[in-house]
Amino acid sequence: MLTVSKRGVEMPASPIRKLVPYADAAKKRGIKVYHLNIGQPDVETPPAIMDAVRKVKMPILEYSHSAGNESYRKKLTEYYAKAGIQVNKDEILVTAGGSEAIMFAFFACLDAGDEVIIPEPLYANYLGFACQTSVKVVPIRSAIETGFELPPLSEFEKAITSRTKAILICNPNNPTGYLYSRDEMLAIGEICKKNNLYLFSDEAYREFCYSEEPHTSVMHLPGLEDNAILIDTISKRYSACGARIGAMVTKNKKVYDLAIKLAQTRLSPPGLEQVLGEAAVDLPDNFFDEPRAEYLRRRDLLVTRLNQMDGVYCPNPGGAFYAIAQLPIDDCNKFCQWLLEEFSYNGQSVMLAPATGFYVTPGLGINEVRLAYVINLEAIHNAMDCLEAALKVYPGRTIN
Amino acid sequence: MLTVSKRGVEMPASPIRKLVPYADAAKKRGIKVYHLNIGQPDVETPPAIMDAVRKVKMPILEYSHSAGNESYRKKLTEYYAKAGIQVNKDEILVTAGGSEAIMFAFFACLDAGDEVIIPEPLYANYLGFACQTSVKVVPIRSAIETGFELPPLSEFEKAITSRTKAILICNPNNPTGYLYSRDEMLAIGEICKKNNLYLFSDEAYREFCYSEEPHTSVMHLPGLEDNAILIDTISKRYSACGARIGAMVTKNKKVYDLAIKLAQTRLSPPGLEQVLGEAAVDLPDNFFDEPRAEYLRRRDLLVTRLNQMDGVYCPNPGGAFYAIAQLPIDDCNKFCQWLLEEFSYNGQSVMLAPATGFYVTPGLGINEVRLAYVINLEAIHNAMDCLEAALKVYPGRTIN
Repeated sequence: MLTVSKRGVEMPASPIRKLVPYADAAKKRGIKVYHLNIGQPDVETPPAIMDAVRKVKMPILEYSHSAGNESYRKKLTEYYAKAGIQVNKDEILVTAGGSEAIMFAFFACLDAGDEVIIPEPLYANYLGFACQTSVKVVPIRSAIETGFELPPLSEFEKAITSRTKAILICNPNNPTGYLYSRDEMLAIGEICKKNNLYLFSDEAYREFCYSEEPHTSVMHLPGLEDNAILIDTISKRYSACGARIGAMVTKNKKVYDLAIKLAQTRLSPPGLEQVLGEAAVDLPDNFFDEPRAEYLRRRDLLVTRLNQMDGVYCPNPGGAFYAIAQLPIDDCNKFCQWLLEEFSYNGQSVMLAPATGFYVTPGLGINEVRLAYVINLEAIHNAMDCLEAALKVYPGRTIN
Repeated sequence: MLTVSKRGVEMPASPIRKLVPYADAAKKRGIKVYHLNIGQPDVETPPAIMDAVRKVKMPILEYSHSAGNESYRKKLTEYYAKAGIQVNKDEILVTAGGSEAIMFAFFACLDAGDEVIIPEPLYANYLGFACQTSVKVVPIRSAIETGFELPPLSEFEKAITSRTKAILICNPNNPTGYLYSRDEMLAIGEICKKNNLYLFSDEAYREFCYSEEPHTSVMHLPGLEDNAILIDTISKRYSACGARIGAMVTKNKKVYDLAIKLAQTRLSPPGLEQVLGEAAVDLPDNFFDEPRAEYLRRRDLLVTRLNQMDGVYCPNPGGAFYAIAQLPIDDCNKFCQWLLEEFSYNGQSVMLAPATGFYVTPGLGINEVRLAYVINLEAIHNAMDCLEAALKVYPGRTIN
């Protein structure tokens, strides 16, 4: 008999995906669904960078350099310099989104069966990349009670085994929105140095920080040059998720050289979108002011509204455009499905991401949901009206 | 100590890459180098499809559907219908080049340690994808003496073990240019059916066949619907290698569903280039006539010139734009390096691909090179003049 792979079957499927048919059905019934479930920003892609693609002269859309066009990598060094990151073009490997950068980092640094420690809740696709590269994810819990701050260092130390090769953090964090402080970054860096671990830092949301303290990149950490692997993407930065342009950045030449072998195997990253990425570096320095201010307004509204609801608790996230809230419900998967399948309020409902999909440890996050504030203020208001009304009547509510 | 992965270290590096510094150095010395070493066509990307991207209205470059835009997949069904392939949009998964399609197929169909049989010489990047997915490549030899036709079926039967899960062919073939006949395709299909194996068919060069007999796709084979996995790409078809748009096509729903999980993990294929791919399907039906005729002229010139040289043998390839020639030399790696490092003829030299990089079995291909006829007729003439002169004076020549 023809059989498919066990590893494919065992690969985790996203709980958000399971909800899509229910959302589609709700829309067919005429219900307006507010999508707080995914991180697809509603911000316009800067016309200037789309224009750069329109104007490009490229008689043959050839393979680019496997590491990305040299002109783009040079340009990126300017972008990184502005973020206080001193790198040269040969320390940057342009990838098909942050996704491919993670794959390359996992494969180049870890063998099959090796372990990577990741604070949970975590970006669910890390689990997919780990599965594809036969890497074992070892979660340590960051708790909603402490606002998802870095778990105690003793927890990291306890989780480290002879197979541990790396720690992965996402800063600011998806799904929690937590922004790691410089002290936290230094502490985690120390653990990595002491235990000879790589520190993979996914900084997709670098531009979206709402505190006074500037963002601390893994590349800012002194003495960590060999351990630091920066995972980056233009997806959220320039509202260009569909471009599939990211980067793996490292000063570790051995890792870079192995990643290049992977890059050569797949030949090159997307060609036209590299032009877009290169043009983006020339956007004015104040380009992020407006989107950042808008996300901040949305965050404030969302978090305020959530915390005003009976039995709801939502820590105030310091970055990105996500928040995780604890709700007075029995099971977030049931609740999110019920919202789409059975509930509506003034002809409207809301789609949320069940938080269980962001936890590895079974049972965690059962009464939590992730909300992405990628819709405008009025829509957030309406969505919160729906949620508030829903929590009063949901059959599985845990308070009355 | 911080260690990199063993699997990364063990991943094969391309012998062509090793030659690049020598080619660069030759150019610095003022030598004109004819590149017959890589399959980057010199044909212009159709302006109409570049224009489609220029004109696209896309205020937000959003994630596309993980399987590719529905409109593109629908459009692709028209393209496939013209090639006699009846598929629907939900049997097509748009990928980041043929590269990603191969990765998805390997991962979805094979577990770590499972085996895929591939006739050698083979496209070297298959080895990289196999390494990334922990799949074992089992080569069986197709011989230059028989023009690289399908090896005897008994060789396949002998190579099949309990771990064999698939056979992979490339048709027309890179690196040999061999075009499998319908009878050969039927025979290989029979083996797959009898032994419950997948048949991965890389048809990147479908449009470039030079015989009377039409191209036989894996999707044409009767009764093989569950076994057939088509690997496709627009790279060569529309001279759009840098687009990174390919497809995995299969009627096997289980395989498709597992591949979709991989596709969802990496979110979506490149957005702007899907627009380009969609526009390409509307190119006039006679679009391929001119490039095909040009490649045919080049093939005829190249193969004729090669076979006129003392001690050189080059079978006449039926498709793609590659040929493998046997040369009267001791070692193709040394020869190719020597051509760039020490030789020139009228201020010119030629860069070839050492064939050892296309063989898995050590020792095979030692006196063979691959030539890609992706340069114009005059350039091919000049390159052949260089090669002919070189073979007369190369210190490691095996005839006098």
